[in-house]
Amino acid sequence: MDLDVFYMNEAIKLAKRAGSEDEVPIGALIVAGDKIIAKGYNQTEKLKDVTAHAEILALTSAAYELGSKYLKDCTIYITVEPCPMCAAALAWAQIGKIVYGTEDQKKGYSHFSPSLLHPKTEVVKDIKKDECATLMTDFFKSKREK
Amino acid sequence: MDLDVFYMNEAIKLAKRAGSEDEVPIGALIVAGDKIIAKGYNQTEKLKDVTAHAEILALTSAAYELGSKYLKDCTIYITVEPCPMCAAALAWAQIGKIVYGTEDQKKGYSHFSPSLLHPKTEVVKDIKKDECATLMTDFFKSKREK
Repeated sequence: MDLDVFYMNEAIKLAKRAGSEDEVPIGALIVAGDKIIAKGYNQTEKLKDVTAHAEILALTSAAYELGSKYLKDCTIYITVEPCPMCAAALAWAQIGKIVYGTEDQKKGYSHFSPSLLHPKTEVVKDIKKDECATLMTDFFKSKREK
Repeated sequence: MDLDVFYMNEAIKLAKRAGSEDEVPIGALIVAGDKIIAKGYNQTEKLKDVTAHAEILALTSAAYELGSKYLKDCTIYITVEPCPMCAAALAWAQIGKIVYGTEDQKKGYSHFSPSLLHPKTEVVKDIKKDECATLMTDFFKSKREK
């Protein structure tokens, strides 16, 4: 199996965990070498904290794990395109590579400014796109029906 | 004394505390009504965490204090214009008002996209501008001389 698909499947598990806790279903994990060093899923409701996005939780955890605030040799897998807050945080961390599943047409960083990312960060998108997108649309559909 | 100046003086004290700990000297505090409910100063080096900006620490603390992730009736005082990460975090929190001291010509959110802020957030700038700016220039000058 393609490694990007393998890690995105793990991120999807985290997104589903968020959804099962009534959080917007977004998951993220960070890989260094061939090892997952940090995981996060959206917990903004539980923690009552707008900064508790999957990416921020994973990023903070990875920095702690590595003992470094820079993540130049790391890749983050995210089920959804990061928002400007998370994109800018990943820029500060100088993350090596971002792989995401589906775009976010309203809040995705690319709709504000692509330069929010660090110029050296590689971006790969559309990995398991449909599954990541369906998680989101199903979640918001169920919210509207409540 | 003008209230904005009063609170900015408090934020400057926090910025100086950051500087004394060899952190980029930026301070922030959040006011609800006539009460300071949260304070923060830059701790990215100490915590080895790129997200540990003064604003993010204050914002998380304020949300905890209020038991709400939204800060619609709050004002944040920051010695320096927020970066895109902090601006977008403050947008998620729907902060009522942002008062900052000096602009950040390289990393200020306004150089990326003014729409990073929530459309309802009021912005006031240039409060104690020179003192806030001097803290920054002196810090980086001393760094270069080391």
